[in-house]
Amino acid sequence: MPELRKDPVVGRWVIIATERVRRPSDFPRAERPRLPGPCALCPGHEAETPPELFAYRDPPTAPPDTPGWRVRVVPNKFPALRVEGELERRGHGVYDLMNGVGAHEVIVESPDHERGLGRLPASAVAEVLAAYRERIADLRGDERFRSVLVFKNHGSEAGATLAHPHSQLIATPVVPLTLADELLGARAYHDYRERCLFCDIVRQETEERARLVAESERAVAFAPFAARLPFETWLLPRRHAAAFEQIDDAELREVASMLAAVLGKLERALSDPPYNLVLHSAPFGVGESPSYHWHFEIVPMLVGLAGFELGSGFHINPVPPEDAARVLRDTPIA
Amino acid sequence: MPELRKDPVVGRWVIIATERVRRPSDFPRAERPRLPGPCALCPGHEAETPPELFAYRDPPTAPPDTPGWRVRVVPNKFPALRVEGELERRGHGVYDLMNGVGAHEVIVESPDHERGLGRLPASAVAEVLAAYRERIADLRGDERFRSVLVFKNHGSEAGATLAHPHSQLIATPVVPLTLADELLGARAYHDYRERCLFCDIVRQETEERARLVAESERAVAFAPFAARLPFETWLLPRRHAAAFEQIDDAELREVASMLAAVLGKLERALSDPPYNLVLHSAPFGVGESPSYHWHFEIVPMLVGLAGFELGSGFHINPVPPEDAARVLRDTPIA
Repeated sequence: MPELRKDPVVGRWVIIATERVRRPSDFPRAERPRLPGPCALCPGHEAETPPELFAYRDPPTAPPDTPGWRVRVVPNKFPALRVEGELERRGHGVYDLMNGVGAHEVIVESPDHERGLGRLPASAVAEVLAAYRERIADLRGDERFRSVLVFKNHGSEAGATLAHPHSQLIATPVVPLTLADELLGARAYHDYRERCLFCDIVRQETEERARLVAESERAVAFAPFAARLPFETWLLPRRHAAAFEQIDDAELREVASMLAAVLGKLERALSDPPYNLVLHSAPFGVGESPSYHWHFEIVPMLVGLAGFELGSGFHINPVPPEDAARVLRDTPIA
Repeated sequence: MPELRKDPVVGRWVIIATERVRRPSDFPRAERPRLPGPCALCPGHEAETPPELFAYRDPPTAPPDTPGWRVRVVPNKFPALRVEGELERRGHGVYDLMNGVGAHEVIVESPDHERGLGRLPASAVAEVLAAYRERIADLRGDERFRSVLVFKNHGSEAGATLAHPHSQLIATPVVPLTLADELLGARAYHDYRERCLFCDIVRQETEERARLVAESERAVAFAPFAARLPFETWLLPRRHAAAFEQIDDAELREVASMLAAVLGKLERALSDPPYNLVLHSAPFGVGESPSYHWHFEIVPMLVGLAGFELGSGFHINPVPPEDAARVLRDTPIA
């Protein structure tokens, strides 16, 4: 019998179609953009990108835009939003709009054209996360911005257009709809129970264990109860914190190590699936929110998404989260 | 300069990336599932589907499950939800769930294996819409259901798995998230202005004309101001009505004729693009809502959707709605 399950954060009902069970081998592999290196994101090609905004390099005092970096952040050469100019909010009849001010940056995860988050050692993943933290902290100082979206597209099916492993960051003067919905749902729960919904989820998942993928002292990864897509996985810090930039170094190391493990498990269990990684973090100005809790959502793109899901917000997931979690738990880390 | 535009219904901000302009010829064609007829949905194969729920046939008194039908509705052979059984809502710790009770039906749009909504004459499209109305009216009598989702996936990229042209219908005991968000946004607008937001949008679009695709006495089609995807098109009745099943025969004929025209224009302008058609209609029990207004959303799948859009609710649309509307207006109907 299929089940209807409700996402407790945004209130989305999902059909878990238990009778359409599919095995990991039924799903496609990631098709990487077929663009062999070296590319504009490779060491030695620094002049082909806009000047770098941040890097971890050896020695740290070496000049920017030269080889020797381990992680490098540059403005997107074809930005969706422009970083120059003042915000101008205005109306147009019944509509609202503003000029497209924002930041769009590329976080190059590694000098190696072939090795990104899913194939890097935990220590290198930690530097990528630390670069996220640095950039968000910097953008936070810009009063025009209200939210930063950090994400990674792995494989063409997940929207990747460059082969060199990279994450992206978009700072916007508005709060994206999904985040706004999450903030609202989390606040409603907190108003009623005086507890953080995500902290309660962590407690239930670590006690129940059926959907648990990995846990450590400071972090937890699990398949969400109302997963929209097969093998969807969330990764949370145990300590309550609304915004990713509040992460401390000990948490950062553990989250990096768990993220490396989960992506490695996904890669092995599903033969390098296309996936999206999206950081969900409180917008600027929310401060020490007692109700929101930052987390990563990892969404393998094993089934096509179309206008139907977009138009309805309705999902039919053929893989119960409990089955997905078991497969990932049983997949060795290395 | 790119623009940030806000969807006035759900409050979603979208980047209209005016500097990434793409021409209609830059987009992919629909890949139809490569399954030549005759198939289980073709005339003469009625025994290969579950017994029919409804049909328009000549003569109307001919027995069901025999050839001679023009539109035929059957239960989905592999339903996502089960129509038998009582609803059981229950909690599981912090989570909510219920057993997967619902209806999942297939509306076969035509006996012709090759001709669906986009290639049928307006009179045949009207019968498909009339079949939607019949089925919704029937399901409305079932107290377990709260909402009916009617949709069509055209082309593999839009999720089609059968070649024979068909729409689908899913009746659920819950309200899909996007519809809930729309109801909320429309109600907030109505509370403030005492007018229907959609009626106001129709007024503005028909006056401004920049995003208008087609209009007639009773119906209007336009590119929405904050379109998420290139060539997204909405089709509304001018007369305020919350639910599709309130449509009268004169409206039904005009809406069918406009839907045939818009799908025909899309097919010619974009060389048969994959698309999703989703009917947005008030849930059962909302009654004569003064704030919600039923409509069709047509979403061509010209750019891939991935977990990023899903995870963030954030869209970057490389084709300004004004450009898309101009292309469609300039495309002849036949």
